[in-house]
Amino acid sequence: MILVMKPTATEENIQSVIQNVKQCGLDAHLSRGQDITIIGVVGNKHIFLEQNPELMEGVEKIVHVSESYKLANIQFHPAPSVIDVDGVKIGGDNFVIMAGPCAIENEALMMEMADVVKQSGAQILRGGAYKPRTSPYSFQGLEEEGLHYLAEAKKRTGLCTISEVTSIAAIQAAKGVIDIIQIGARNMQNFELLKAAGKSGIPVLLKRGMSATIDEWLNAAEYIMAEGNENVILCERGIRTYETSTRNTLDLSAVCVLKSKTHLPVIVDPSHATGVRNFVGPLAKAAVACGADGLMIEVHPNPSKALSDGPQSLDPPAFFALCEELKPYIALAGRKFIHV
Amino acid sequence: MILVMKPTATEENIQSVIQNVKQCGLDAHLSRGQDITIIGVVGNKHIFLEQNPELMEGVEKIVHVSESYKLANIQFHPAPSVIDVDGVKIGGDNFVIMAGPCAIENEALMMEMADVVKQSGAQILRGGAYKPRTSPYSFQGLEEEGLHYLAEAKKRTGLCTISEVTSIAAIQAAKGVIDIIQIGARNMQNFELLKAAGKSGIPVLLKRGMSATIDEWLNAAEYIMAEGNENVILCERGIRTYETSTRNTLDLSAVCVLKSKTHLPVIVDPSHATGVRNFVGPLAKAAVACGADGLMIEVHPNPSKALSDGPQSLDPPAFFALCEELKPYIALAGRKFIHV
Amino acid sequence: MILVMKPTATEENIQSVIQNVKQCGLDAHLSRGQDITIIGVVGNKHIFLEQNPELMEGVEKIVHVSESYKLANIQFHPAPSVIDVDGVKIGGDNFVIMAGPCAIENEALMMEMADVVKQSGAQILRGGAYKPRTSPYSFQGLEEEGLHYLAEAKKRTGLCTISEVTSIAAIQAAKGVIDIIQIGARNMQNFELLKAAGKSGIPVLLKRGMSATIDEWLNAAEYIMAEGNENVILCERGIRTYETSTRNTLDLSAVCVLKSKTHLPVIVDPSHATGVRNFVGPLAKAAVACGADGLMIEVHPNPSKALSDGPQSLDPPAFFALCEELKPYIALAGRKFIHV
Amino acid sequence: MILVMKPTATEENIQSVIQNVKQCGLDAHLSRGQDITIIGVVGNKHIFLEQNPELMEGVEKIVHVSESYKLANIQFHPAPSVIDVDGVKIGGDNFVIMAGPCAIENEALMMEMADVVKQSGAQILRGGAYKPRTSPYSFQGLEEEGLHYLAEAKKRTGLCTISEVTSIAAIQAAKGVIDIIQIGARNMQNFELLKAAGKSGIPVLLKRGMSATIDEWLNAAEYIMAEGNENVILCERGIRTYETSTRNTLDLSAVCVLKSKTHLPVIVDPSHATGVRNFVGPLAKAAVACGADGLMIEVHPNPSKALSDGPQSLDPPAFFALCEELKPYIALAGRKFIHV
Repeated sequence: MILVMKPTATEENIQSVIQNVKQCGLDAHLSRGQDITIIGVVGNKHIFLEQNPELMEGVEKIVHVSESYKLANIQFHPAPSVIDVDGVKIGGDNFVIMAGPCAIENEALMMEMADVVKQSGAQILRGGAYKPRTSPYSFQGLEEEGLHYLAEAKKRTGLCTISEVTSIAAIQAAKGVIDIIQIGARNMQNFELLKAAGKSGIPVLLKRGMSATIDEWLNAAEYIMAEGNENVILCERGIRTYETSTRNTLDLSAVCVLKSKTHLPVIVDPSHATGVRNFVGPLAKAAVACGADGLMIEVHPNPSKALSDGPQSLDPPAFFALCEELKPYIALAGRKFIHV
Repeated sequence: MILVMKPTATEENIQSVIQNVKQCGLDAHLSRGQDITIIGVVGNKHIFLEQNPELMEGVEKIVHVSESYKLANIQFHPAPSVIDVDGVKIGGDNFVIMAGPCAIENEALMMEMADVVKQSGAQILRGGAYKPRTSPYSFQGLEEEGLHYLAEAKKRTGLCTISEVTSIAAIQAAKGVIDIIQIGARNMQNFELLKAAGKSGIPVLLKRGMSATIDEWLNAAEYIMAEGNENVILCERGIRTYETSTRNTLDLSAVCVLKSKTHLPVIVDPSHATGVRNFVGPLAKAAVACGADGLMIEVHPNPSKALSDGPQSLDPPAFFALCEELKPYIALAGRKFIHV
Repeated sequence: MILVMKPTATEENIQSVIQNVKQCGLDAHLSRGQDITIIGVVGNKHIFLEQNPELMEGVEKIVHVSESYKLANIQFHPAPSVIDVDGVKIGGDNFVIMAGPCAIENEALMMEMADVVKQSGAQILRGGAYKPRTSPYSFQGLEEEGLHYLAEAKKRTGLCTISEVTSIAAIQAAKGVIDIIQIGARNMQNFELLKAAGKSGIPVLLKRGMSATIDEWLNAAEYIMAEGNENVILCERGIRTYETSTRNTLDLSAVCVLKSKTHLPVIVDPSHATGVRNFVGPLAKAAVACGADGLMIEVHPNPSKALSDGPQSLDPPAFFALCEELKPYIALAGRKFIHV
Repeated sequence: MILVMKPTATEENIQSVIQNVKQCGLDAHLSRGQDITIIGVVGNKHIFLEQNPELMEGVEKIVHVSESYKLANIQFHPAPSVIDVDGVKIGGDNFVIMAGPCAIENEALMMEMADVVKQSGAQILRGGAYKPRTSPYSFQGLEEEGLHYLAEAKKRTGLCTISEVTSIAAIQAAKGVIDIIQIGARNMQNFELLKAAGKSGIPVLLKRGMSATIDEWLNAAEYIMAEGNENVILCERGIRTYETSTRNTLDLSAVCVLKSKTHLPVIVDPSHATGVRNFVGPLAKAAVACGADGLMIEVHPNPSKALSDGPQSLDPPAFFALCEELKPYIALAGRKFIHV
């Protein structure tokens, strides 16, 4: 941590800040410049920060030079994490595809989709049981009943399953029923939910908040990991920008940034990011090419009848074609795409 | 709702879409242009929308022309709502100030601050009991104990009280203990929490999400109101932009936009928006001048020792001075600032 | 400037960086931490920066602690600048209003508007002669002819005049004809135009770029000032964000930030910022309340017939009423509003 | 164009608007809803728009359903444009790489880089002669002298050349000396420059503005094309968002959007977008995978000594390696990468 002093800071101000730093058991290193003096602070800053050094006489600003997340930090865990979800490996040199309908609408549809996903070679079946919707008057999901359809689909096909949870009650309902719980963009900083997900021990796919910085996202992962659950998978799903021609702006650079900051696996969701079916394929390939560990793709047997997010869903033939097209890209990227 | 047809749409496509509209019991109005044909759809669109008209053959895009929120909509409730919180009126021609420390640190501090707030003329005492923090390693609040200090402070001073809730359990703990529950920016689309706040019947101050549009915000208010709780107060607290010289960008235009779209009262929080103590006063005055119904301001007896957000807190003398400076602005704006 | 070393930096790396710093005639101050080592660099960094220290072995990142603009910087010029435009003083404890039509459409309209502006008490007449328009097929302005109508309007009323210039040729045309040249948001980083404006010696109103940070904006002012023209006025006109209910998001915090970073006067343009006539008044008052030195407001005798930006223009009665309403706010803010 | 009427609009208002529409020689199609009435307007809206229909009594808002650019619009030119630059074909099933140093520093360096680029198989040599820099105190480029080094480099290697122009004078200097002129992000809406580029007839690479929407970008292209110059190449180079871990946010979805809206070729610049050397390779592959027509990549013989943007430049070995790695991706994308 660096304290930048004001040009008007007096010698007395400087000495008083240094005194303060030392009283907290830290080292202070002074660099006097012509215009600006800076004080480097070294050691465990926790106690010092509680004194609000920004407000000490003569201090202009504080510059943090190290990250606040530890368990998610690549500096303390250089090898990529490989998360084992009932035999499916996520991370390392593996490549996974998670696919299925945005919302679980009924049992028949879920079984039909499970067969489609199984046939495509994808390893994980997705389906939304609890749907966070902007308007209270939109379809809100089948909830617990939906989770059980996923469990049946797993029995039928052997596919691992993932579904979003939006409450602590939903995490409890998911336990032992599905394989991965997803925390959605709107709940990325719902810290009570993050802690409960951490305590549950279930693998968690953590989507990036609509306007979350990468550091905030990794701190959200840290909330889960600090509860003892290290099985965290990150999922880039687009960020909010001024551009309106896509629903959000898919930030593929984030894949590169994450690979330089964390050991956790990174999945990309081009369906939610763009909201446009025709853009899913090209951006899925781009995600593979820039180093993602997997994809989440929406598929629906009849997108024009989907209760949620139809316009971004692929129909089964388009999804089969995309999986085939992705294979050489996955191979080029040095990844293994192993069917279950 | 308007369906814009592709330039390549055939006559058959157009007729098929119209057929679809009519089968849902709606009226279709066709406008043929040289390049583009549009179909106006009139009536209750719920069933029609579930058919994903974006995906119908020949349809280029859908343009929505009416809002999805109803209870919060000024069109159906033109008079401004005045929310009565244990005798304190929020909205209409009243002006309220909510003030207090970011976090409740201990009982003595809370009592000291209650006296300060009382003396200033502000009507509502704030204090954070449940603190949502970016890092799991930061101070997380006194939780239920904190709420009880607020209740004691009310007994002592007669001030109404407000505190943020971050979980359904916290709403239950708040019931009967404090007067207003706050839903923070990070939870603005935590729909389970919104529903629970709605069911609780307690007045709710709903902060704008970090990157929420005004329409999303009003839909979040609608979640609370749809559960039968019409006592919703909106609070602008800055939005996330690319600019980094303030923590967020205070969007005072939002006050004007809200006044044109909803009857709910609008509060402005310049402390969280800017994160800079010296900017709180000028922006508080600006908020009054552009039509806000109240302010939320952080005050701390000793900002340099605050456990949370010290740099944006005013000390008591600065807060007293600001309240005095605000009075002529409140009067100019045609508002009454009535002490409790 | 601070160099943050990687946790993996070797002793050799550190010494080599220090060597490098010293060879450029600068001082290096070393702070060794448990995880991270930092090197403070003090002195004129110009030569050192050309060596791209980010790329030196072992360096993780560079943190700049001082600003690159000097002439615009309040640290080297603490008193607020007062810019004298043919007798009208901008800055200090003065308050100015610039008003007129978005585009100069014809001579009669310009004269009519000049009379309206004169009558209102505003001191400066605006009118667009060169109109930067998103589409090449929109009305582009009367160009030089328009400037001459402004000059005539000045003869008639004594009002100072301002108009946007979009090219070096336009600056030449403006010289001696109007009093202030405006550089618009789209040209804020058109550095050739900035240099030419600097060389012209004419007072310049520099609008903030659509997505310019405050530091970039002050650096743009520095381009003008570095050519010897210190008569620069800054104008906040809204920034681009994700919110679409106003054309741009008016950033009134920027007024506070600028007042802490520069001595140059700051004007606010609520008309372009919001694009909505009904929001101009409330935000104009807010701008006064938070410390702006003036306002730029669009007025048109018949907004529904304006060739450019009609929906945001006030008609004369609305403008007269607003000027009256602003007066007590200007007085409260401790400013003088002196008619010419 | 659609006019949405207010719920409070009277029958008289509606008839008056329709009258207005018809007087402009257009057709009006009325759709009456329970809450909202809309009027579809069909025909050439130019004259009607000058009447500011937003301001007509009873009108709530206007919704545009067709784009304002014509020459750049895929609807009127469905086949992809292939731009021939002295024998190098850009667009269609061709793939081009433009590479070279950010700034032209001296002749020797330019010749060295020309040899590197030639050897890599890339077809176009870039080098900045006129450098737009945030601060007036940074290196501003060799200007005309730089252009001549590019011309010599072409003689030596046969590579086509590209360089940014920042003024009309620079366009004149470039004519006959280099093959493609680049208009940078900061000048995307410098309309005088766009018109001059259009008149010059030289092929133009138009970078996306820092916060330009895709529609604004295509309108900027339209400015060039409307002057008779159809040789426009678009270049995505990252947009400004709140995320700070990369310099800008590379918007690869924009490639997909552009391919659905325009026939013009699309190039991606991962060097400027990220500002981080290690991210250039993965994002270059991603750009190929999602359908870009080419890449612009910064290369410098000794990035740690570059006068501009060193940290994002590849050194020659890294660039050679990247070109080799890109070849299978280019082949997979069905493109031809033909050396000159």
